[in-house]
Amino acid sequence: LNEGSFFNLQMQLNFFLPHFKLYDFADRHNADITRMIFRVANIPYEEVLIDRNNEWQQLQREMPLGTLPVLEIDGHKIGGTTAICRQLAWRFGLSGETAADDSIVDMLADFLHEAHISLKSWINAIQNVNNSEQDVESLDKMASHYVSTRLGPVLEKHLEKNGTGFLVGGKMTWADLMAVSFFNKLFDSGREGFISAFPLIKQHYQQIAPIVLPPTKFNDKLNEDTLPIALTA
Amino acid sequence: LNEGSFFNLQMQLNFFLPHFKLYDFADRHNADITRMIFRVANIPYEEVLIDRNNEWQQLQREMPLGTLPVLEIDGHKIGGTTAICRQLAWRFGLSGETAADDSIVDMLADFLHEAHISLKSWINAIQNVNNSEQDVESLDKMASHYVSTRLGPVLEKHLEKNGTGFLVGGKMTWADLMAVSFFNKLFDSGREGFISAFPLIKQHYQQIAPIVLPPTKFNDKLNEDTLPIALTA
Repeated sequence: LNEGSFFNLQMQLNFFLPHFKLYDFADRHNADITRMIFRVANIPYEEVLIDRNNEWQQLQREMPLGTLPVLEIDGHKIGGTTAICRQLAWRFGLSGETAADDSIVDMLADFLHEAHISLKSWINAIQNVNNSEQDVESLDKMASHYVSTRLGPVLEKHLEKNGTGFLVGGKMTWADLMAVSFFNKLFDSGREGFISAFPLIKQHYQQIAPIVLPPTKFNDKLNEDTLPIALTA
Repeated sequence: LNEGSFFNLQMQLNFFLPHFKLYDFADRHNADITRMIFRVANIPYEEVLIDRNNEWQQLQREMPLGTLPVLEIDGHKIGGTTAICRQLAWRFGLSGETAADDSIVDMLADFLHEAHISLKSWINAIQNVNNSEQDVESLDKMASHYVSTRLGPVLEKHLEKNGTGFLVGGKMTWADLMAVSFFNKLFDSGREGFISAFPLIKQHYQQIAPIVLPPTKFNDKLNEDTLPIALTA
């Protein structure tokens, strides 16, 4: 392919690609996994950031579950993290390779989603959403217990059994992204000690996070727009 | 078809049908939605009921998420309610009719699953699992608030918009079964007042529950094995 025909191919792909519109709150916490999928698949999308205090009350009625994130695909709205991710995953090749693999992806993604729901007040507290005034110390204790007795052992066992560095099969799936999203909250808040007993989870995070998270996360002091990482060596 | 060829057809179907083995605790609370799917699809399965106090500690290590329900399909184990239901739904025609419909099924099923997780301590308390000694009154208050402000309005709106009596499209999907499973807990414990403001949800439950729940639920005084309902008229 020369440059011209590559450009034509791109035009054609864009022509057939639906218009994706992602609604999230202005703090961008709720749709982080969806953004990872778009980033890995290199697919353009429109982002609508909503002010929790002003616009939300008006817009909430138009959202199918009354919550964010919401993904609009050619005008058709889907709400809820796992429904959005599953929809995008089959479009962009982030599902399991076989039906059997995909049911394990489903299982682990739902398991990680359950962790997000069960630890919601803790996550809000450490991300300081809604100026949470909860008792962080007792929430930390609960979260640490959940990670060390439930989340950690199950994921570590799956990583060991699978043995490819990914959670399921030999390729990246949206279950890997769900895991990175969860553990990113630990790494970002200085709580990576929660997973010190799980070396394979740590390794999984360190290998996948740089690919799926925004480059700024790993180069806080660099402005990625003016100084590409490749030029700094 | 005469009786002989029907028998052969059945044999053939059984030959191609995988062997399904459903693991649940002896109180049978955890796999109720899975049982509904098998009942509606009229598919045979083996049930393994586990004693929470004796066998569980030993068996827990063999379960992929360390929890029940688990569905074993020809020796391959899947854990987690939504992953199990999604797998069976596409096998037995309980998914959405189109890709767009199916993403709404996913969305509502996950939304209902979230309700089950968020209200877990309340559900345990009213079902008296683990001899829960929680404060039922304050849990009831929380659950009633969740149903009237979150679950109820979203489902009522979807039922109104869809207008077929089902949650999505013109046929039964596993989202309907997730709803029946949740609201059955209200009806069974005398708390149907929680949904008095949502007439379409009540109608949905009353139309679908008799089809998907065991007949004994609706004919407590009849022994379904010795006295078929058809003979009592």
